[in-house]
Amino acid sequence: MILEKYDVIVVGAGHAGCEAAAAAAQLGSKTLLITMNLQTIGQMSCNPAMGGIAKGQIIREIDALGGLSGIVTDKTMIQFKMLNLSKGPAMWSPRAQSDRMKFSEEWRNQLENIPNLDFFQDMVTEIITDQHKIVGVKTFMGAIIYSKSVILTNGTFLNGLIHIGEKQFGGGRMGEKAAFGITESLIKLGFESGRMKTGTPPRVDGRSIDFSKMEEQKGDTDPQKFSYTNTPKLKKQRSCYITYTNIKVHETLKEGFERSPLFNGTIKSTGPRYCPSIEDKINRFSERERHQIFAEPEGWKTIEYYINGFSTSLPDDIQIKALQLIPGFENAKLFRPGYAIEYDYFPPTQLKNTLETKIIDNLYFAGQINGTTGYEEAAAQGLIAGINASLKIQEKNSFTLKRNEAYIGVLIDDLITKGTEEPYRMFTSRAEYRMSLRQDNADERLTPLGYNIGLVSEKRMKNLEEKLKKTNECIAFIKSTSIKQEETNPILIDKKSTPITQTVKADSILVRPNIKLKDLEKINNIQNYLYAHNYSDEILEQVEIKIKYKGYIDKELENVEKLNRLENIKIPSNFDYSKLNSISTEAKQKLIKFKPETIGQASRISGVSPSDINVLLIYMGR
Amino acid sequence: MILEKYDVIVVGAGHAGCEAAAAAAQLGSKTLLITMNLQTIGQMSCNPAMGGIAKGQIIREIDALGGLSGIVTDKTMIQFKMLNLSKGPAMWSPRAQSDRMKFSEEWRNQLENIPNLDFFQDMVTEIITDQHKIVGVKTFMGAIIYSKSVILTNGTFLNGLIHIGEKQFGGGRMGEKAAFGITESLIKLGFESGRMKTGTPPRVDGRSIDFSKMEEQKGDTDPQKFSYTNTPKLKKQRSCYITYTNIKVHETLKEGFERSPLFNGTIKSTGPRYCPSIEDKINRFSERERHQIFAEPEGWKTIEYYINGFSTSLPDDIQIKALQLIPGFENAKLFRPGYAIEYDYFPPTQLKNTLETKIIDNLYFAGQINGTTGYEEAAAQGLIAGINASLKIQEKNSFTLKRNEAYIGVLIDDLITKGTEEPYRMFTSRAEYRMSLRQDNADERLTPLGYNIGLVSEKRMKNLEEKLKKTNECIAFIKSTSIKQEETNPILIDKKSTPITQTVKADSILVRPNIKLKDLEKINNIQNYLYAHNYSDEILEQVEIKIKYKGYIDKELENVEKLNRLENIKIPSNFDYSKLNSISTEAKQKLIKFKPETIGQASRISGVSPSDINVLLIYMGR
Repeated sequence: MILEKYDVIVVGAGHAGCEAAAAAAQLGSKTLLITMNLQTIGQMSCNPAMGGIAKGQIIREIDALGGLSGIVTDKTMIQFKMLNLSKGPAMWSPRAQSDRMKFSEEWRNQLENIPNLDFFQDMVTEIITDQHKIVGVKTFMGAIIYSKSVILTNGTFLNGLIHIGEKQFGGGRMGEKAAFGITESLIKLGFESGRMKTGTPPRVDGRSIDFSKMEEQKGDTDPQKFSYTNTPKLKKQRSCYITYTNIKVHETLKEGFERSPLFNGTIKSTGPRYCPSIEDKINRFSERERHQIFAEPEGWKTIEYYINGFSTSLPDDIQIKALQLIPGFENAKLFRPGYAIEYDYFPPTQLKNTLETKIIDNLYFAGQINGTTGYEEAAAQGLIAGINASLKIQEKNSFTLKRNEAYIGVLIDDLITKGTEEPYRMFTSRAEYRMSLRQDNADERLTPLGYNIGLVSEKRMKNLEEKLKKTNECIAFIKSTSIKQEETNPILIDKKSTPITQTVKADSILVRPNIKLKDLEKINNIQNYLYAHNYSDEILEQVEIKIKYKGYIDKELENVEKLNRLENIKIPSNFDYSKLNSISTEAKQKLIKFKPETIGQASRISGVSPSDINVLLIYMGR
Repeated sequence: MILEKYDVIVVGAGHAGCEAAAAAAQLGSKTLLITMNLQTIGQMSCNPAMGGIAKGQIIREIDALGGLSGIVTDKTMIQFKMLNLSKGPAMWSPRAQSDRMKFSEEWRNQLENIPNLDFFQDMVTEIITDQHKIVGVKTFMGAIIYSKSVILTNGTFLNGLIHIGEKQFGGGRMGEKAAFGITESLIKLGFESGRMKTGTPPRVDGRSIDFSKMEEQKGDTDPQKFSYTNTPKLKKQRSCYITYTNIKVHETLKEGFERSPLFNGTIKSTGPRYCPSIEDKINRFSERERHQIFAEPEGWKTIEYYINGFSTSLPDDIQIKALQLIPGFENAKLFRPGYAIEYDYFPPTQLKNTLETKIIDNLYFAGQINGTTGYEEAAAQGLIAGINASLKIQEKNSFTLKRNEAYIGVLIDDLITKGTEEPYRMFTSRAEYRMSLRQDNADERLTPLGYNIGLVSEKRMKNLEEKLKKTNECIAFIKSTSIKQEETNPILIDKKSTPITQTVKADSILVRPNIKLKDLEKINNIQNYLYAHNYSDEILEQVEIKIKYKGYIDKELENVEKLNRLENIKIPSNFDYSKLNSISTEAKQKLIKFKPETIGQASRISGVSPSDINVLLIYMGR
């Protein structure tokens, strides 16, 4: 069967594939989304949650650019929390629990409403090329589909191999078939491939959990959302529950270590360092007497719970035995055990910064195929690949983001310049410019860029301009407004802040740590101004952040410049990294392994953060 | 891993498995539902519809007994039609289009709310027995689960083999793995197995269909529902669309016949005679110039359409080429092609009338594993198996239905006494007592039985008793009420019915073909009575049917008695069946093949209906 010719074929319909297909089609490319099962579009393979530290920022960025992950999350979330609110706004990170079934349904619904986007259920088994240029794909059922470009987003499906204790079997996710053919087809074309590993915890029947023995973790009382569009706010929420492992649990888990594919050599590939299995945790941190475990509901109505923190590929008899020693899980019944999965990936140094491969023109990779982990990282890559596949066909300039523009820029720059030897996950520490790359200003940073390429509507762009205009107008007012001792000092005294001895500009008070814009509203002329203008909460938040943290932001930019100047400083070849106590274990291991010649090289090693570099400089006497 | 011990294990979570698990657990048995994928509980493998002729009656019966299929259908349907309303009430058959995704979600939701019911995701690969008694099951992941009884509802998954043109591959449904091990395990125990075949049509992108070239088929203006409980009535509905094949379509399909697994000998097993593939239809009925095709929406929102009437396993290039020659499908885009699937079944003559196997105590089979086809047939068997598994453990009397009590009784009696050589589907013609086995009186027939075994609540039983009391009261009134010429004749003249010449009882008028109870409401004393009692529509319908069709029902019972008397009449061994023009093709073929010695034997052959027997008797001169 020969189907019609497409501009863009997206292979796989997970987070990367969905964003890629949506972006390419919305930018006017005739797009086909091929998946092995049309009923599992937008399936959350692991935890039923979106966002989190640094990851929440990515979802906000995707949304600001015109991607759909934020909208889908908002429409299907069952709990929202803004993490790290006690820290500065660079660290504020939105996170949502999702209804797994509804998330998948909503993705399909969103995609079905995009005019240029077609769907086909089949397994792609081969990439067709001609003279290092993509021509199309062949499928398991024998269809040949021609296309100007192809985006591969195969997740964990490429030669996927599932491990539970001594048992192993082919599969892309539990209960689903693995995909084959693509890896072999790419290797023939000269691509280098590797294996990675990831894992997932057991799912438990909520009726068998005693929540009274756990700590309830409610959502925020005033839940925010991910999308800058008019998605609805959460009205009710479901709670998560926290409990802890103990020594007995650890001892029981250790009974299974000999039969663990992680420890007996069966699994050779590397798993995500920052999402370790429970056996990894008790092995690496043997001094710790307990680890946190979260029971997270899988949806509005379902009794199924996801046991966050208990990812494992130990034999299932050990899984259940150990789980039942954790408070609240004494009578736990498994819906299914946890497992590890090994799959093929392609070192991302084989990619350009548009996510197009260097070897084959118009072939793009996005998501776990590039060695990343996480829904958010996958979605971001899908979006960038989808945008660029479409732009290139239309002979337009490529679209890339710099490290100072977005976490997405950091992600892709890290991947293509440093590669990764273990599943790559985003952290705030990976971003040198994190004071600028906040979740609250993703729209200001990126919506104009999304508008320029045509992914953001004119109306949305106008709304943003209006918001920025008002924000600047209000900032100008605060900066130029004098406030007097009589009115200001009662507020300051109440907040245990030093009184002023003369009239000052309002912004000089707002920068004080415990003074908020809300406090200054008690001052008459500020009150009158704010009352007259009736700004939205969103605008007032921007005003406060931009005035309050101006110093930090400016300082960050200075530091970055300094880092750039120091980039070419040589490191002595006999430098003893084991002396460095205050850098991360990962950074130390990597520095010892790679022995970088310069600070610049050191800074580009995956897992070595800017603050690690600072420590290194101090030890080197700079 | 050894899980805890269960009373009942149900293997498979399709229509049969869901009903079985629900019934067993609700009757107090500690029940485990094992499925290869917990995300595909209650999946509709083929058309997104429930009910239809004879099948709608079965769903009503399931509901009346306390099963859940009717409730799940009511909550997720997108269109309702009462078929055959122009015929007598024996033929009235409810049918609903369902939202495929929501149907599955609702089943899971219903099951999750049953206290005694646990869930586990794994593949059962072996039945464990001891001395011809079930002990438990072994799973693919190595778990051993002990249980007092086991119900197998494996659908098309046992060694499932999918065919599309020359291509064949293992699978239980498209995109899902086949199950293995169980067949082999049963054969070792002495079971006889066979292969059957079924198929499904392509799914099409609704945006590529030109509905203006088709006939719209709306739902009923006053949609009814399946369940006797207080499920909601449909407020809005989605339409289906009708179009037709033509000579060109048939010629194109014929181009693929050489590559058809059905015709080139690749598929040897038998498919459902009354749900033939399109290639079967044009092959068997080569004189017909067109066949009806329905485009049925797959849900409230989705753009996916099911192409009813176009089931096919021809090569996919032929599928799309032929489809595009059908009006409205000129630009059709496939979501996925149609396919045929072969799977193992176990001739149901190996079962008792409780659906327990004769060889292994406490092992039950339900659904396609017994050689049936259809969601409704499967669900009914699941319900009966689930009830009996539970009753037997509790050392209670078994629960069976007679042929004169329910279509479910006919179904199971047919299966266990006649067996079936092709996928068995229910028809009204299979039921000798179909005037009694109506969809409208399923509650009266079966709810008391469901109440006796404990599956129907006391409240529901009380409601039924109240309804019957009022119905009888109203019937008694109509029968005893005299109506006069002055009041009655204007109504009769208006309805073109012969005027009466003297005062008569009201029931003698109501039996007239075109006179309805509504018409008699114009008569003063009837009006006053009905106004005072304010009976529900449901009760008034019962009153009308019971009075109006009393003669037919009585005659049916007489015929049945006659049939019983004639059962032992010998058929001459040289009888020439080819002379019989007015019996069905199937009956003729079967009679020629089996050469029954008596009318009794003839009547028990699958596919030979009571009316066929009548014709036979006439030809034999009786």
